[in-house]
Amino acid sequence: MHGLIGKIRCTPGQRDALASILLDGTAAMPGCIAYVVARDPGDDDVLWITEVWTDAASHQASLSLPAVQDAIARGRPLIAGFEQHVVTEPLGGVGLP
Amino acid sequence: MHGLIGKIRCTPGQRDALASILLDGTAAMPGCIAYVVARDPGDDDVLWITEVWTDAASHQASLSLPAVQDAIARGRPLIAGFEQHVVTEPLGGVGLP
Repeated sequence: MHGLIGKIRCTPGQRDALASILLDGTAAMPGCIAYVVARDPGDDDVLWITEVWTDAASHQASLSLPAVQDAIARGRPLIAGFEQHVVTEPLGGVGLP
Repeated sequence: MHGLIGKIRCTPGQRDALASILLDGTAAMPGCIAYVVARDPGDDDVLWITEVWTDAASHQASLSLPAVQDAIARGRPLIAGFEQHVVTEPLGGVGLP
């Protein structure tokens, strides 16, 4: 499996708007096992995204999906920066096949 | 919901042993929506644990479960340090109720 952990700094006051864009655009992505959008309770402008995919290829393919392309286009202006980007190899656990 | 992202540095050569201890001990935890054990492909001694719980109380209660207590006891000697610990508020996404 292929995992991702990302820390996104939103432009001030836009976190909830970005969260809903991300949630809208990521509902139906083949090979996506988990895509969690979370707030950082300690920082009003930060979202954490944690993902698990069947493999890296399915994640890569998702970036071409119309809904994802749309979310990227709508979300980009609300993103001030990507502060952390970690690639992982999920081994197992609760919530995984 | 209550989320956690943790980066664990294992004692050298013990990553897989720690991963299996964590996976053993975390299979049946009330309120646990996701508990993912993942390797860091860029660092042989690092595990990433990403978690989603219905609430902080269910996570806290899990620490008293016999299987979790056992995993903590068996796993502690294989842990060199906790390098990152992030608390999040999951809003939604794939893999969540």
